[in-house]
Amino acid sequence: MQVVSKDFKYQNLEHYLLDMINSGRFNVGEKLPSLRDVSQKMHVSLATVTHAYMELEKKGVIEARPRSGYYVRQKVAPLPIPDLPEHDVQIGKLSRTQLIQTVLGIVGEKGMLPFGCICADSSVLPHKALARIMNSVLRTHGQDVMSYESIQGNPLLRKQISWRMQEDDCRVTGNDVLITFGAMEALYLALRSTTRPGDNVVIQSPTYFCFLQLLENLGLRAIEVASCPTNGVSPRDLDRAFSRFDVAACILAPNFNNPDGALIPDATKQEIVTLCESNNIPLIEDDVSGDLYCDLEGRPRPLKSFDKIGNIIHCSSFSKTISPGFRVGYMIPGKKMDKALEIKATTNVSCSTPTQLAIGKYLEEGLYDRHLRKLRRRISDQRTHMQQYLPEYFPQGTRATQPKGGGVLWVELPKQIDGTKLFFDVKKHNISIAPGAIFSTSESFTNFIRLSCVGFWNDEMRAGLETIGRLAKEQLGSEY
Amino acid sequence: MQVVSKDFKYQNLEHYLLDMINSGRFNVGEKLPSLRDVSQKMHVSLATVTHAYMELEKKGVIEARPRSGYYVRQKVAPLPIPDLPEHDVQIGKLSRTQLIQTVLGIVGEKGMLPFGCICADSSVLPHKALARIMNSVLRTHGQDVMSYESIQGNPLLRKQISWRMQEDDCRVTGNDVLITFGAMEALYLALRSTTRPGDNVVIQSPTYFCFLQLLENLGLRAIEVASCPTNGVSPRDLDRAFSRFDVAACILAPNFNNPDGALIPDATKQEIVTLCESNNIPLIEDDVSGDLYCDLEGRPRPLKSFDKIGNIIHCSSFSKTISPGFRVGYMIPGKKMDKALEIKATTNVSCSTPTQLAIGKYLEEGLYDRHLRKLRRRISDQRTHMQQYLPEYFPQGTRATQPKGGGVLWVELPKQIDGTKLFFDVKKHNISIAPGAIFSTSESFTNFIRLSCVGFWNDEMRAGLETIGRLAKEQLGSEY
Repeated sequence: MQVVSKDFKYQNLEHYLLDMINSGRFNVGEKLPSLRDVSQKMHVSLATVTHAYMELEKKGVIEARPRSGYYVRQKVAPLPIPDLPEHDVQIGKLSRTQLIQTVLGIVGEKGMLPFGCICADSSVLPHKALARIMNSVLRTHGQDVMSYESIQGNPLLRKQISWRMQEDDCRVTGNDVLITFGAMEALYLALRSTTRPGDNVVIQSPTYFCFLQLLENLGLRAIEVASCPTNGVSPRDLDRAFSRFDVAACILAPNFNNPDGALIPDATKQEIVTLCESNNIPLIEDDVSGDLYCDLEGRPRPLKSFDKIGNIIHCSSFSKTISPGFRVGYMIPGKKMDKALEIKATTNVSCSTPTQLAIGKYLEEGLYDRHLRKLRRRISDQRTHMQQYLPEYFPQGTRATQPKGGGVLWVELPKQIDGTKLFFDVKKHNISIAPGAIFSTSESFTNFIRLSCVGFWNDEMRAGLETIGRLAKEQLGSEY
Repeated sequence: MQVVSKDFKYQNLEHYLLDMINSGRFNVGEKLPSLRDVSQKMHVSLATVTHAYMELEKKGVIEARPRSGYYVRQKVAPLPIPDLPEHDVQIGKLSRTQLIQTVLGIVGEKGMLPFGCICADSSVLPHKALARIMNSVLRTHGQDVMSYESIQGNPLLRKQISWRMQEDDCRVTGNDVLITFGAMEALYLALRSTTRPGDNVVIQSPTYFCFLQLLENLGLRAIEVASCPTNGVSPRDLDRAFSRFDVAACILAPNFNNPDGALIPDATKQEIVTLCESNNIPLIEDDVSGDLYCDLEGRPRPLKSFDKIGNIIHCSSFSKTISPGFRVGYMIPGKKMDKALEIKATTNVSCSTPTQLAIGKYLEEGLYDRHLRKLRRRISDQRTHMQQYLPEYFPQGTRATQPKGGGVLWVELPKQIDGTKLFFDVKKHNISIAPGAIFSTSESFTNFIRLSCVGFWNDEMRAGLETIGRLAKEQLGSEY
């Protein structure tokens, strides 16, 4: 996919002006600067400014007054945040495997507009740096690259990971890290290390659908606890689940839960860690989106940073930030290290040597933070664009999250709309989205969809968003 | 590790002469050709021939008669093949995890003489070709290498694998292949697709110890059926196990079972395939050593080539032949494809993109067969050397397998010797071996050890073998 640069530029200006208006820098009724002023100040052509003003006029945000100039007509407020569905702690039967497999298949197809894909667009990923490093690794480490790495993983990579975690207030060394094939294997090893078939596992609702599949495959039962887009999971709900059920483990994504983007505040994190400790329930942390914070001063803390006794199994990866295809993830299993190593050895022995070394060297060269800054900016740009177009394109009554990080928006459509039907409808237009139904074992989210921000935006994406909205409206029939 | 070429050369000549004598080309009492004749005929220096004759004289194989020349004094027969231990079909409790982990740790240590390691020595592996190909893949496929591969695996690699299997009489296409992280993951997916915790699984005895660990981790029970070094598994024994127990699956390594090198004859393979079909028991085939045949006209047939209904789950990898560190294996799951894909997706999503592409291109370039010929020759050379030195270095009463392929010798020591003690004793001399006790849940093999032939031989290895023998003799005390 290629960004048409001219297109992209004018959209940035429009976006900038919208921000000015929505943030109150220009008030309703106020006169906007002249086309020539904007052109000179923003270093863009007069044609570009004219185009941007015309687009804003079309949207009804500004209006031209003859022989006077452009004036602010109205603000475009972002959509309200979704309501928390009526939700009690509940136990559910898992059986949405087929829909999930269909979704995964369609999201993976080439040529789809990637509103369903949660991996950063490959144009944003550091493929040139990684190719250079891999080439140097193969030349320098020659025969070693051919051999098994230790079960626990490459020591250089483990050390680099531990240093990053120390910056996030986690007391870990390279010896505490176990390298896995992506965060998915980390989750798998965490559950295999803490549960037996038939056990109950507490998860957020909504939660990443692959976790539901993993639970089903391991013969585990999901106990869903409400996740609130603004505050995450409440310790009170967790406590209730712990008292009502015999719980073997608890999986939480404290930083930008997929799909609702929920961020658990630090004070609540501390409470939850203490609660799990005192109930002797292993707490499995999925932190794959923690590095993708956007409207925050710094990275939100992992639950692991509150862990004093090794009760937390921290899981993460570089799949969302460096490369999904390299399959390099990791876990800090705490007390479960020996068990996790034993299971890892009999599942696939150890991780690939060349990919571990390449990521390890990439971190060692200090390239990661600069790359993350670029990636966060690209994702944030796309999200802002989407938030601005959603009110225009989507049916009245639509709500959407305003996450402070992660790569997804969680969209609540009017009750009558079936998100799964919408998924199949937009697929015919070569657009992928994720239907809300797959993110829970309950029926709470059938009118939800998840839209991804993979760091890529152009007019085709804008038109795609318009199509999704139009098809959603069509479900409402003639009344709209 | 470096092969000292002079050393290596003379040992080859000695080896050649020994072969001539043992095969009856020179009979006991017969005069050997003069040093000068051998030097000219074999294109080696006179010093090399002198050295070889002196070594053979030291071993008592030939004798110098003054002013006449060298005469054959006696043949050195290889050791007899191990007795089949008294062995009934039995059900066992798995609990040798700790010893296995110790063995894996020591085998993986750098600087150990690799009699315990079953991966080809890295000097034999095609690291230069792979580095070149990987570099080209990263340049040509740029961004694609960063993305997820499909769950089933890279299509080019799957097609290449299916073509190789077609040559071995298997009716498969690329669509029947599922790429895995090594054969270990293939076995794991095969068992997860066919069993539930508590189920019974038939395995060979002895069997690869990682299979025992995998069974234990999955909560499965091992039913051991005797493996005979010369004929493999008998259908009668299998039938008996199937009638006595409720069997969920059966794992067999028909071609050069690790550790006893057993090769099941083709007629027996057909019988076994039919037996499993008629009992409706999925047959999991481990074929990682099939390409490493040595004293055979061609590759032995996989069980899969007898499969007409998809009941056989064929598992293999390139870890023993191209690179263990790349972690590229595969399975032909037959009827269990959908189930295996579902479990793969929730265990680690999919295999690494760059390593799959590199191995796929390596096969496409037609480099594999030439490499296999070289690898087989190197392994065979080492095995012949070991078989010739074993009678000299090891205690009387020792027996050893004479496998027609694979990379290991299975050595039965006199009953009084404890293979596990020997493992710890030789470790102090920086030598790794595998103790027999870990290859079964029974106590049948405590006086056995497994010695690997990884395609590497020099005087250090010879001295290492001598040390193992000496430490074994020491266990027998003063009577020897």
